Amino acid sequence: MYYLGIDLGGTNIAIGLVDEQGQIIHRGNAPTGRERGASVILKEMGMLALKVMEEAGVRLEQINGVGVGSPGAPDVQKGVIIYNNNLGFRNVPVRAELQKYLPLPVYVDNDANCAALAEGLLGAAGGVRHSVTVTLGTGIGGGVIIDHNIYSGFNNAGSELGHMVIVAGGKPCTCGRRGCWEAYASARGLIESAQAAAEENPTSLLFKMVKGDLTKLTAKTPFDAAQAGDRVAAAVVNEFLDYLAVGIGNIINIFQPEVIVLGGGVSKQGDDILRPLEDKLTREVYGEEGVPVAKLKLAVLGNDAGIVGAALLGFPPEKRALVSLFGPDPD
Amino acid sequence: MYYLGIDLGGTNIAIGLVDEQGQIIHRGNAPTGRERGASVILKEMGMLALKVMEEAGVRLEQINGVGVGSPGAPDVQKGVIIYNNNLGFRNVPVRAELQKYLPLPVYVDNDANCAALAEGLLGAAGGVRHSVTVTLGTGIGGGVIIDHNIYSGFNNAGSELGHMVIVAGGKPCTCGRRGCWEAYASARGLIESAQAAAEENPTSLLFKMVKGDLTKLTAKTPFDAAQAGDRVAAAVVNEFLDYLAVGIGNIINIFQPEVIVLGGGVSKQGDDILRPLEDKLTREVYGEEGVPVAKLKLAVLGNDAGIVGAALLGFPPEKRALVSLFGPDPD
Repeated sequence: MYYLGIDLGGTNIAIGLVDEQGQIIHRGNAPTGRERGASVILKEMGMLALKVMEEAGVRLEQINGVGVGSPGAPDVQKGVIIYNNNLGFRNVPVRAELQKYLPLPVYVDNDANCAALAEGLLGAAGGVRHSVTVTLGTGIGGGVIIDHNIYSGFNNAGSELGHMVIVAGGKPCTCGRRGCWEAYASARGLIESAQAAAEENPTSLLFKMVKGDLTKLTAKTPFDAAQAGDRVAAAVVNEFLDYLAVGIGNIINIFQPEVIVLGGGVSKQGDDILRPLEDKLTREVYGEEGVPVAKLKLAVLGNDAGIVGAALLGFPPEKRALVSLFGPDPD
Repeated sequence: MYYLGIDLGGTNIAIGLVDEQGQIIHRGNAPTGRERGASVILKEMGMLALKVMEEAGVRLEQINGVGVGSPGAPDVQKGVIIYNNNLGFRNVPVRAELQKYLPLPVYVDNDANCAALAEGLLGAAGGVRHSVTVTLGTGIGGGVIIDHNIYSGFNNAGSELGHMVIVAGGKPCTCGRRGCWEAYASARGLIESAQAAAEENPTSLLFKMVKGDLTKLTAKTPFDAAQAGDRVAAAVVNEFLDYLAVGIGNIINIFQPEVIVLGGGVSKQGDDILRPLEDKLTREVYGEEGVPVAKLKLAVLGNDAGIVGAALLGFPPEKRALVSLFGPDPD
């Protein structure tokens, strides 16, 4: 038997036909074309799924379920996306629409939750019961896996880890609050502080690397400049990692997951962020003698996490625990 | 059938014989006498339990299980308290010791988790699946209930909500970190800021109420002075509530529990903290249109929460969900 996983993004729809071990065996892609509206997008998803099945020679009777990972606030029970600003979704009945084309069980959840489910079961946290995946992108996304299942509260809106305040009264966040973790430890936060430091230090390599055009600064620039010996950039990176460690320390003290997975663009810095974070975390975690602590790991599934996680929504709970054992060794 | 719930405190051991509805039908008390050491304390607990059973006319065969709520870091699987500084406990085999006197299933968990279980199933959050109980005492304790069970991570050390940093680099906390929620929004945090404000404002009512002896200030003093019209005290209380709201807002964004229960000494201020907190929280919560939000409630079980929660440790999972329906109406 097979599962379909659909990762609905702002620009692209990615579909994977997934086997019982959670491996993608065939893929399909289409532009989202968000201006077309929800019902056209969902029809496109349905047609693309049928095409992927046909190409792979898999019939409807061989599919156990279809999972959709979408940005926005889901109503998991009803299979609805309540609200998403980016796609212009408002009470979109994803399950009901998709079942017009795919008469199968359809599961709907938030895309960050799907990615966390994939990393938690089959990725960097494969084999453990409790994990938290933190996605460091433009913002900070989060997903919490408890006993091999997504935990997102009574209204499916939980695990907004990026909107945990770590500096009360601090920098304004896009959400309207002040001092959110995301304002400091996301790619956006890093770029903003690198821009400020470059502007103050026009003789720095950080400034020179973008020839003074601060809009050219990316999250990678301060890491590259620091690597090349620039002290201004090193200070920016160090401060960024301090804020990252504060939030990760909070997640450990709150959840005590066995593994914390770091994903998203910034995590591509690999050991350059992992090692200093581990050092800083020894200061940040509230521990008692003799109690084991969470491990910090880099995400391993990349962009596939969205597809695989969506497909996993359709796995029955006992199968999720089982499939988790096929993941990479957690140590 | 019955259950025994034992609340082991730093100064007092409180035992309750609890029926299948979670009601205490008979009680017993004894001083902890922590200087006597773990094995003597545990023998005292066993003897006291037998006395309570005898007084109530309940035989060993009528008891389904014994739960112990203890301060410190538990190993729930092994029934051990790994470490507690206050009681001088270090790898104390609570289950094994207690079973010398009570040949029954023995369950061990942290006392804050037990209180959260009681409030979550039978108290202020009775009837809901996900709740978080925050205990505002000298420090800030927390307990997280997910699907009628205690969630405390892979090492049973989670839900240290008081040690969530809300002011990165801020006030030193007793745990060694800086800027923990507990340093600002516990009774201790409130007293410290009231002392500072009184010292700076010797003409304030806050100062006069303790006749200038700042060591006499309690968490109640700033509330009383503010109530009597003192602007210095009102500012202290307002700032305290701001910090309290930041942490509660974080808990909502992270867990989206259906109910957040406020317990502990400070919560006795009742509506004087509940109403302003609700106002402040409308600013602090990251919400999307059409998504319901958590309710804030005051704890209702008082000191009994520890006994009842410990007894509930022995309830089988399906019985926990059932007994939760007998609690007060959640609305």
